[in-house]
Amino acid sequence: MAKVRVGVAGYGTIGQRLADGVAMQGDMELVGIADLAPTLAIRALRENGMVGANNVKYNLYLVGGADKAKFDALDIPVAGSFEDLCGKVDIMLDSSPGGVGAKNKELYEKMGVKAIFQGGEKNSVADVFFHGYANYEKGLGQKYLKLTSCNTTGLIRTVDCLDRAVGVEKVAITIIRRVADPGDYHRGLTNALQIDKAPSHQAVDLMTIMPHVEATGILVHTPVTHGHIITVLASGKDGKKITREQALEAFRAHPRIRTVTIDEGFLGNASLFKYARDLGNRRGDMYEIGLWEDSIVESGDDIMYAINIPQESVTIPETMDAIRAAMEMQPTREAGTAETNKYLRIGRFK
Amino acid sequence: MAKVRVGVAGYGTIGQRLADGVAMQGDMELVGIADLAPTLAIRALRENGMVGANNVKYNLYLVGGADKAKFDALDIPVAGSFEDLCGKVDIMLDSSPGGVGAKNKELYEKMGVKAIFQGGEKNSVADVFFHGYANYEKGLGQKYLKLTSCNTTGLIRTVDCLDRAVGVEKVAITIIRRVADPGDYHRGLTNALQIDKAPSHQAVDLMTIMPHVEATGILVHTPVTHGHIITVLASGKDGKKITREQALEAFRAHPRIRTVTIDEGFLGNASLFKYARDLGNRRGDMYEIGLWEDSIVESGDDIMYAINIPQESVTIPETMDAIRAAMEMQPTREAGTAETNKYLRIGRFK
Amino acid sequence: MAKVRVGVAGYGTIGQRLADGVAMQGDMELVGIADLAPTLAIRALRENGMVGANNVKYNLYLVGGADKAKFDALDIPVAGSFEDLCGKVDIMLDSSPGGVGAKNKELYEKMGVKAIFQGGEKNSVADVFFHGYANYEKGLGQKYLKLTSCNTTGLIRTVDCLDRAVGVEKVAITIIRRVADPGDYHRGLTNALQIDKAPSHQAVDLMTIMPHVEATGILVHTPVTHGHIITVLASGKDGKKITREQALEAFRAHPRIRTVTIDEGFLGNASLFKYARDLGNRRGDMYEIGLWEDSIVESGDDIMYAINIPQESVTIPETMDAIRAAMEMQPTREAGTAETNKYLRIGRFK
Amino acid sequence: MAKVRVGVAGYGTIGQRLADGVAMQGDMELVGIADLAPTLAIRALRENGMVGANNVKYNLYLVGGADKAKFDALDIPVAGSFEDLCGKVDIMLDSSPGGVGAKNKELYEKMGVKAIFQGGEKNSVADVFFHGYANYEKGLGQKYLKLTSCNTTGLIRTVDCLDRAVGVEKVAITIIRRVADPGDYHRGLTNALQIDKAPSHQAVDLMTIMPHVEATGILVHTPVTHGHIITVLASGKDGKKITREQALEAFRAHPRIRTVTIDEGFLGNASLFKYARDLGNRRGDMYEIGLWEDSIVESGDDIMYAINIPQESVTIPETMDAIRAAMEMQPTREAGTAETNKYLRIGRFK
Repeated sequence: MAKVRVGVAGYGTIGQRLADGVAMQGDMELVGIADLAPTLAIRALRENGMVGANNVKYNLYLVGGADKAKFDALDIPVAGSFEDLCGKVDIMLDSSPGGVGAKNKELYEKMGVKAIFQGGEKNSVADVFFHGYANYEKGLGQKYLKLTSCNTTGLIRTVDCLDRAVGVEKVAITIIRRVADPGDYHRGLTNALQIDKAPSHQAVDLMTIMPHVEATGILVHTPVTHGHIITVLASGKDGKKITREQALEAFRAHPRIRTVTIDEGFLGNASLFKYARDLGNRRGDMYEIGLWEDSIVESGDDIMYAINIPQESVTIPETMDAIRAAMEMQPTREAGTAETNKYLRIGRFK
Repeated sequence: MAKVRVGVAGYGTIGQRLADGVAMQGDMELVGIADLAPTLAIRALRENGMVGANNVKYNLYLVGGADKAKFDALDIPVAGSFEDLCGKVDIMLDSSPGGVGAKNKELYEKMGVKAIFQGGEKNSVADVFFHGYANYEKGLGQKYLKLTSCNTTGLIRTVDCLDRAVGVEKVAITIIRRVADPGDYHRGLTNALQIDKAPSHQAVDLMTIMPHVEATGILVHTPVTHGHIITVLASGKDGKKITREQALEAFRAHPRIRTVTIDEGFLGNASLFKYARDLGNRRGDMYEIGLWEDSIVESGDDIMYAINIPQESVTIPETMDAIRAAMEMQPTREAGTAETNKYLRIGRFK
Repeated sequence: MAKVRVGVAGYGTIGQRLADGVAMQGDMELVGIADLAPTLAIRALRENGMVGANNVKYNLYLVGGADKAKFDALDIPVAGSFEDLCGKVDIMLDSSPGGVGAKNKELYEKMGVKAIFQGGEKNSVADVFFHGYANYEKGLGQKYLKLTSCNTTGLIRTVDCLDRAVGVEKVAITIIRRVADPGDYHRGLTNALQIDKAPSHQAVDLMTIMPHVEATGILVHTPVTHGHIITVLASGKDGKKITREQALEAFRAHPRIRTVTIDEGFLGNASLFKYARDLGNRRGDMYEIGLWEDSIVESGDDIMYAINIPQESVTIPETMDAIRAAMEMQPTREAGTAETNKYLRIGRFK
Repeated sequence: MAKVRVGVAGYGTIGQRLADGVAMQGDMELVGIADLAPTLAIRALRENGMVGANNVKYNLYLVGGADKAKFDALDIPVAGSFEDLCGKVDIMLDSSPGGVGAKNKELYEKMGVKAIFQGGEKNSVADVFFHGYANYEKGLGQKYLKLTSCNTTGLIRTVDCLDRAVGVEKVAITIIRRVADPGDYHRGLTNALQIDKAPSHQAVDLMTIMPHVEATGILVHTPVTHGHIITVLASGKDGKKITREQALEAFRAHPRIRTVTIDEGFLGNASLFKYARDLGNRRGDMYEIGLWEDSIVESGDDIMYAINIPQESVTIPETMDAIRAAMEMQPTREAGTAETNKYLRIGRFK
């Protein structure tokens, strides 16, 4: 069977990882990446002879407005225009800066290619707001999908997991958000916590994906770069108690949830970041969210727990799922996510 | 009526503020402070001619092991020994480093003086675990009281406030803890969030003070210095719904809760720290906790909200309450806290 | 003698402190402050009944574009327009956001009032680029003065001090810059050091004020809020050696340089910030720069040392000097700075 | 020719990278690593089937005091004791916690193996204080070598480079030190700069390695994790001027110095950390120091510049050099460092 041909628009923090993710899928071909300027990410690729993950060659296409002379001056090979790239793919992964994706969609429509947008775009850009585990089937054969944002993606992994195991009716979350990625200089916060108006968009988004769950929450920004931490209080369906044991069992069985403990040495988000580097993972990334077993406590009949969201890489698996759904490569949630997990080597630690 | 004579053991972050607090009470006399070494706090006092808040002279006594020669070399006047101080007071406020208070208690017992310990000591050091608003009457005439810690003090203000207004049965909290005070070099955290084993001690402590409420929670340390933020999810008694309006009305009426909004410019803990400095408050302190009106959301029948805890100064008012209870200066919670509020000018912004 | 009538345009971080500074000068009258919106700073003033430093009433005037209804809604009294204020003063202190001062100057010219601009404006806005200790006499009777920025102000205090004591020919500086003020949310840096293109503007500015000194330097931004640290390597005039003893003696004698040591407990910029709060200084501010005696080392014939710049308040004394120069209140550097020091209680620790 | 057999004692931040470095050398064999407890680093290795860099199997040996049962419980294979490891190697790389290396030396002496210690040990532990570029020949055939610390290693690369190109007589440095590594929880600093007593040990160490250069400096700790920044002011030999062009040319030619610019996007230490991750380097590490071309300025006849030290990995190349010197694998500095550079792919970007 022919490999599905995939392009990536925007080679930033997410785009780099999407390209790597596609390069690792045995049933997909990374046709190329598109960007505007010779950023550090592009320069690093050039230093590596344009070779990325899995020893795959990454062909670079230029989006409109790019100055080719700047690439030539740096001896960075250019394979063509953004339109050229769109002409060669079945589906585009759009990780352009927020708002640009909606503009790119005009080209996708004109060229007849499907597309998957990241969380920064408005929901209206897509036919389906997608999560690999929570609503895979809704994405089947669809043209335009939008992924949940990093926090929502990880959060839903756990709520969907609990919901399938024991039934969930309501969640209240507190998001302790990291403000920047390692290497970011365009945003930051210094010695300050910042609060957003409640409810947080992540709670609202969860309800869009899982309409049978009532969700609300508060978000607080913190001046760190390595992983959001979210506390979740989940109430069982019809007032049914969720026990610590039930929750633990369900979480431990989920391929994209890594249950960890403080005693092992996972003291916080920085420990998980370090661990992913020590694993030798490309870019020091982790696809799984961390969930602290020591954080799981019962609050009356409700269950409370804390998770860690590796913001740079957490949406990559669900985006691969989205390709499989949109291109109808696998017919079910189970088959789609299993294929993604296999190629990304997710769950090998179980 | 004679003023109650008060001493302060330990002139650190809390002790300085306790001394200032006592100096501001019209019905108390600050007999003296005791410390071990010529710290920056003592040097600052010396630079001011040993004059502190309210133009009160702070007499310095030395605890055992102190090297008087060091004070002499710096021309810092010494009024006597710790034992001398204990002989002149009715009650001691003990803000020594954790564990030292328990040892000091032997002297208090021998000298027949009452004492109030801060949150760092074990509960067993005291007869009563005290909070001015939640259990003032329990402290009446008692010999040894222990204050709740900074987070617990602020948290209980709101839970007790809600409980008296509408009834509270259960709370689940997420504490976003600052790791250091401004000026701290002996502890810290750099670009990392750190999680503690759940449940947090603050939830457990709340249940000790308010035994009819079930509480649990998760605590995450963050690398900032200006104020903890806590999110609280409170469930009404007997399953009764708590509305946003009820909560808001109750919080607005509480003298030690300052309700603020993001639109006014209170973007986070640093805004409140700045505001206290701009008020010209001594040391840039604030006695009230902040509560964001924009954070109050309903979660089904439960209510969720976020508060800011000014960790350096929040326990001062409740410690003044504790003096009033222990010395039976006022017979009721209402009278005791009102007197404290008057002298500390709390609630003038209402 | 009639007091010099002073107004302050812009009641932000610097403007608040300028107003406080003027309020403390026995020979000046704070006629009023001007601002655009009911910021936290204005709200804090209102909470205090519009009373600021030294129990002085701060009259509020509104700049063009301000919406008076917003002030009325908050019961904040307004005394008139910016133009009204200009009509009542001899001199304006302009601490508007960068660039606005140049526009305000048109009004100052029209109204015939003198003005002193802060470091954010271009040098061309003023007749003299001013520093109280380094070139007081140049400001005498001038109409428009511009102050050096916070780093440059503190840096020049030490270089001018050394220069007058032993002669300085060349300096090379490294500025370890704090990126935000406490309370700032509009700028920040998270877990990152950022470098600027060399030479730093502070070195260039120093040469403008002290043209006989050659200066260069490198600036690195750090994610902290409490005080810049600058290391300085100074070379003596005509290759003459500067000894550690000479430098120490000169620094110790300067009223606006506070020499401190690590052994006393001054471990870094946060210790100095804490100390200023412990002193009970308004807003926890300090007018003096800190200079670590333990940092002074000889490098061949050159001398190297490190200073701490309290960015929020360091330029206040030199701005008071500037008023005295522009209004010809004192004829000499010695008399001008001494008068400022007296009213701001600078040097009382010597 | 038989490969040199190497062991690594202590599999922490440095030890992990030393093991990886050895695994990449074509003329060395990584016999094994030794540690005390199943740390996160060991757990990550186990998750990877004990396979490390270059697909090399890492055999684990236990140091005295280790509890083998803990390793067994986690299914971590143990190859033997620390003594067993010493019996199979030609040379040990000791990256034990500071002070432990000196104790280990007794075993090395008993077993007759050579050893290379890291910067945390006292100089007296070794026969030679070593730097691959500055004094390679001194290490030839020696038994015990000690590496310079991370800052000193990077600093000396540039000073030695300048010295060989144009002659250097004196340097004055300012070290802007990161306080923790990513993943560290045992040390930290929050919103504070901390200063050490001058001169910094790095300046002193530089003089030990390069006795003909006079060096001094000031060190300031900053709350970040990604790379120290050092500013250097270097004076030419016999008062000879060093021009910007000379310096730039020399730096650009050095394999272990990566000259970068702000305009390319290298805004600070975090950009370099990000870039190393984007390169796909194992653990996101970089062996080269960064040197900002935009920071190079002339200060009279002296030259000033700023460098970035990737603290986790910078000493790895010089340690490989040290093995080559101690084992007399290459006779000269040029040959020794070139071989290291080849295997670590250093300088491929030139």
